[in-house]
Amino acid sequence: MQKLMSLFEPRSVAVVGVSDDLGRPGSQAVRALLKYGYAGRIFPVNPKYPAFQGLKCYASIADIDAPVDLVVIGVPAQGVLSVIEACAAKQVPFVVILSGGFRESGPDGIERERRMLEIARSAGIRIVGPNCLGFANIHANVYAAFGSITREPKLSPGAVSLVTQSGGFGYSIALACAEAGIGFRHVIATGNESDIDSVELIEALLDDSETRTIVAYIEGMKDGRALYDAGCRALSLGKPLLLWKGGITEQGARAAASHTASLTGTYDFYRALFKQTGIVEVQEIHEVVDYLKAFNGGKFPSGGGVAVLGVSGGSAIVFADAGEPLGLELCELGEKTQQRLAKVVPSIGAIHNPIDLTAGYFSAANQEKLETAVKAVLDDPNVHTVCVNLATTGKAGSLVAAEVLGAVALGAAKPIVVFSSAPSSETAEALHLFDEVKIPVFRSPGRAAKAVSMLVKYRQMRQRTHAVTPPALSVREVSSVQATLSRLGATGGALSEIDSKAILAAAGIPVTKDIIVRGVDGNIFEKMIAPLVVKIVSRDIPHKTEIGGVKVGIATRAELESSIDEVLKNARKHAPNAQLDGVLVSEMVIDGFELIAGVVNDVVFGPVVVVGAGGIYTELLRDSVCRLAPFDEETSYEMLGELKCRRMLDGARGGIPLDVRAMAKALAALSQFAWENRAQVREVDVNPLFVLPYGVIAADALIVLHER
Amino acid sequence: MQKLMSLFEPRSVAVVGVSDDLGRPGSQAVRALLKYGYAGRIFPVNPKYPAFQGLKCYASIADIDAPVDLVVIGVPAQGVLSVIEACAAKQVPFVVILSGGFRESGPDGIERERRMLEIARSAGIRIVGPNCLGFANIHANVYAAFGSITREPKLSPGAVSLVTQSGGFGYSIALACAEAGIGFRHVIATGNESDIDSVELIEALLDDSETRTIVAYIEGMKDGRALYDAGCRALSLGKPLLLWKGGITEQGARAAASHTASLTGTYDFYRALFKQTGIVEVQEIHEVVDYLKAFNGGKFPSGGGVAVLGVSGGSAIVFADAGEPLGLELCELGEKTQQRLAKVVPSIGAIHNPIDLTAGYFSAANQEKLETAVKAVLDDPNVHTVCVNLATTGKAGSLVAAEVLGAVALGAAKPIVVFSSAPSSETAEALHLFDEVKIPVFRSPGRAAKAVSMLVKYRQMRQRTHAVTPPALSVREVSSVQATLSRLGATGGALSEIDSKAILAAAGIPVTKDIIVRGVDGNIFEKMIAPLVVKIVSRDIPHKTEIGGVKVGIATRAELESSIDEVLKNARKHAPNAQLDGVLVSEMVIDGFELIAGVVNDVVFGPVVVVGAGGIYTELLRDSVCRLAPFDEETSYEMLGELKCRRMLDGARGGIPLDVRAMAKALAALSQFAWENRAQVREVDVNPLFVLPYGVIAADALIVLHER
Repeated sequence: MQKLMSLFEPRSVAVVGVSDDLGRPGSQAVRALLKYGYAGRIFPVNPKYPAFQGLKCYASIADIDAPVDLVVIGVPAQGVLSVIEACAAKQVPFVVILSGGFRESGPDGIERERRMLEIARSAGIRIVGPNCLGFANIHANVYAAFGSITREPKLSPGAVSLVTQSGGFGYSIALACAEAGIGFRHVIATGNESDIDSVELIEALLDDSETRTIVAYIEGMKDGRALYDAGCRALSLGKPLLLWKGGITEQGARAAASHTASLTGTYDFYRALFKQTGIVEVQEIHEVVDYLKAFNGGKFPSGGGVAVLGVSGGSAIVFADAGEPLGLELCELGEKTQQRLAKVVPSIGAIHNPIDLTAGYFSAANQEKLETAVKAVLDDPNVHTVCVNLATTGKAGSLVAAEVLGAVALGAAKPIVVFSSAPSSETAEALHLFDEVKIPVFRSPGRAAKAVSMLVKYRQMRQRTHAVTPPALSVREVSSVQATLSRLGATGGALSEIDSKAILAAAGIPVTKDIIVRGVDGNIFEKMIAPLVVKIVSRDIPHKTEIGGVKVGIATRAELESSIDEVLKNARKHAPNAQLDGVLVSEMVIDGFELIAGVVNDVVFGPVVVVGAGGIYTELLRDSVCRLAPFDEETSYEMLGELKCRRMLDGARGGIPLDVRAMAKALAALSQFAWENRAQVREVDVNPLFVLPYGVIAADALIVLHER
Repeated sequence: MQKLMSLFEPRSVAVVGVSDDLGRPGSQAVRALLKYGYAGRIFPVNPKYPAFQGLKCYASIADIDAPVDLVVIGVPAQGVLSVIEACAAKQVPFVVILSGGFRESGPDGIERERRMLEIARSAGIRIVGPNCLGFANIHANVYAAFGSITREPKLSPGAVSLVTQSGGFGYSIALACAEAGIGFRHVIATGNESDIDSVELIEALLDDSETRTIVAYIEGMKDGRALYDAGCRALSLGKPLLLWKGGITEQGARAAASHTASLTGTYDFYRALFKQTGIVEVQEIHEVVDYLKAFNGGKFPSGGGVAVLGVSGGSAIVFADAGEPLGLELCELGEKTQQRLAKVVPSIGAIHNPIDLTAGYFSAANQEKLETAVKAVLDDPNVHTVCVNLATTGKAGSLVAAEVLGAVALGAAKPIVVFSSAPSSETAEALHLFDEVKIPVFRSPGRAAKAVSMLVKYRQMRQRTHAVTPPALSVREVSSVQATLSRLGATGGALSEIDSKAILAAAGIPVTKDIIVRGVDGNIFEKMIAPLVVKIVSRDIPHKTEIGGVKVGIATRAELESSIDEVLKNARKHAPNAQLDGVLVSEMVIDGFELIAGVVNDVVFGPVVVVGAGGIYTELLRDSVCRLAPFDEETSYEMLGELKCRRMLDGARGGIPLDVRAMAKALAALSQFAWENRAQVREVDVNPLFVLPYGVIAADALIVLHER
């Protein structure tokens, strides 16, 4: 890690591909290094020039008579490999390849990228790019970049680092932040990510003491688990990670595939990962701006109670409208609070929440009153955040508010946020004051509400005892599961229902009582409790119902015998080549609510557990949620809480409440099973998984193993 | 109407309540009239001053020696009534009351407001306010206002008029629009709306030739039907009406009730009204800005096909992500289009959608190529809108794009929109050019997508054959329904099931075959098709199931007899005081999907028809949609399309498709019934209303009439 960070602090930079055409990427890089005052040595490289922009120009990397910490390559793709070879000879540790013409451009480019990587790996060179805008260290004025990153206005130094797979769009985010007064540490556009990728950079930035917040725009990635780990570490370090996932819809993903050549994972998996790690998802440019302002405040509300006060009743209504669905509440104020407010709020105003200070209240004459009012609501235990609506308040009033709120905020643990809509020409000075005391100012009440709600959720994530490992099975249990898996799954592929259930049962997921019979055998009727179900057992018949391989609701011994006979006949008739392993006789589950649970072992994200509404609801509701395995019961509860059918589990329609706790245990157990056996298990489908008044029970199950 | 518009064009304005304290509302009004150059005569009124701000100051309204077209009142509430009386004597047509202390301030204020209105009505005076910021005619520099409306910076003249119930928040919207270069016609903050209300103003503005778009912020209203009519007229005139409904959530509405004292209708009803009339709902300040820019373009896409071209692949992905759920599609480009593009797009770019022009493309050298590329996509029949991503493109490139796109746009019927994220310091000149040729420029790809999708929907609404009257019942049918209603509903209140069904059947809604019996009567078994249902009939027992008053699935004559006996016994036992009208025997509906349909006759919106998922889905899905009655079958289809359970009607889960057309007819018929009989019908509940493979059938129904 420490190693990668030195990428950003080169004592010298060579730029290959400068030219009199100042629009060339290499020329832009050198000019930016000069213009913004890079303190290290700069070596332009081009055999055709003796000098460039007043600097000595070298014929090749080899000619440079000093150590080179970083080489920036801007020559056409065809020339890149020989430059990399020269870098290898010169023992250059880091290279940024701005040039396109690699993986994104077809078969020749793919081969070129492979060769490039081969040379770099064997020489220990780390590469940013190719096909990228490059990076800038804003604090040290290192510009290994071209295009918008090098253009005016220069970003101000600050504590936000940006990692983006799209240089153009990522820099759009940076510019919007800059316009809102936000400063930057490092800005890195990663392009093809053939060596250094976004997640590795995020990991490195977590170790950078100057970076306090990270913003990332990511279209695809190879290793979802690395992002998972980075997210967890960011949360535990308290460095917020804001992530914009590009390519979330079908056509977005299609556009993404044509844009870079990266692997786009499923958006649902990303969202699960965000929820599990406290990564803050963003989907609009102004969201990034607002959330950075909110985080910069450094104070986190311990709940959703908000006191709204100000001079615009409409703004308070709009805040309430936007906040309610996000979990914010204009809380009741205590009697003591209202008494304190009554002394400083005009009688035609309002001392309940939202507090109406009345028009024109923000004036020098009211300075002390305002201070009393704000302190009163801050002291109220129901209030977790104070939102002050300046609305159209002009220059003088905004300054008064900034001074008073700034003084009060100093001693306050609760965040204060402000909505101001006056033109910045009027409020520039006040905005500067607010910025100094880290009070975020938002451009609409709705945006203020969204940012406050985000802070509440972030704090909740931070406070959560985040045991990602579920209560462990004993060593004996784990090895029993693994032994069974190895025995039954010798050849890989789909396991039979009875084998699948045996494994799940060992893993801690209750299954129905089943007995397998080879032929008609009425005696087992006495051993079970009717009604019963019979199902054909064959690895060659995955869809049993379609061929008449299932009979349900069997109430008598005679019915049992005829049913066994019938499913065997149907199987022989409709699947003559299938190897029949017998007939499964099970006790039928007649109560409870049907869920579906399963595991997908994704190539990018590893095992992911999915749970959804089953039976008739599956198609109607399209109701499912997922999380990366393994996880604990708390996470299971959270998943169940997100299901649309959640209220059916609590005994909706007069039914008795079902055993949600047992379901949470089963999901956590399934997640542990999926994680521990990820090398073997490709897919699990438990359908239906009944939630009963007491316990849960899997009535059918299918485990698919990786092919050997 | 014409009358109301003269409010905005006074030849003279008197302001009552000026003072040396320049912060007083009256003083602010006079200063604004002077500062911004109002051309008419200004009469300050205050007996204590001989002159004010260089103008002669009058002791009273009566003293003014000239006609007064408008009086602005800023004196404390206690003094307002006598001023109104003076206005009456002076035959002043319009008064703006800035002062608070009326309905919003308790019993004394309510009485004051009543008296004020009484005097005004008898004198024919129309009033804006009280308790408001007033209004400004930006074109004629009429400032009958105080507070933010009168402060710098002055709004520029333009074609947008704003009506707002919250002065502070409404003017926040205006300021954000102004910052984006949008000009205004009239800005009116209506306060208590005790006389002139928002809807009347909207109606008037529809007749104002200088107003091309109307923005309204509304917290509550007395007459939803007036807004409905205004919305329909706005649509047919092609003057977009953007409406922000404040107080949409429970706590927002609570805050609204404490802020003004207006009646807040149900948000669902508002949304139905918006959908039926083409009113464009907004919920964020930047949405207003973006939509106004989009409308200002004056071109409307005839479909959701978008060609995205530019220099930032990431921006195209983000546009696609945001656009897909809104119905926008990055459409396939025709072969001919791609051939034309191939000639002008560099080979490392992309000629499929999104079109990658490659970095740095926007330059003077590419001017002709860019023109060819944009013309090529505009000519493609799949393309309805062209979105050009400038992203971070700087000054020179943006200017090139503005010139080329401006020239191309002149001859194009399809809209071109632009995303630019460069700082306005760089792009000011280009933005000005774009503005001149009415090409809207958005600050993020997502905001561009949202605006384009809004334009698509607006055009669809405009094009729709908007027959709000459903296929009429014959005169005979209508009078039969009305006769039945009058006969059965003599006393008002709830009708019995059999009466309710008889009325609905006459209104065109099929009902189950029912026979009413007084006691056990097995003979009717032969007249019906089993299975049957029996239900107790009594106006005094609204919830029949709870007291054992319903038996279902009756298959034999003997079962029928015992069931009739049993429900009668249960009714006598559990509701001994109920008057029993007999037992209803019905054919049981055993197929089809259960919906619930109903009518609520709302005090603000009149009769509203609601349809939702029935049976087990009601509670699970909370799935219902509504529209204001009456409406046509097309609207019924639209309603059914919005139901979460919609796909169950199309034969989900292997079932056969159900008769959606019959359901649409039934809903339209219900809406017509509800509208025509709105004076009598308070509520209708058709539950369940089964959608069958052929036809629909109401298995139970309840009509509640207004009490006489």
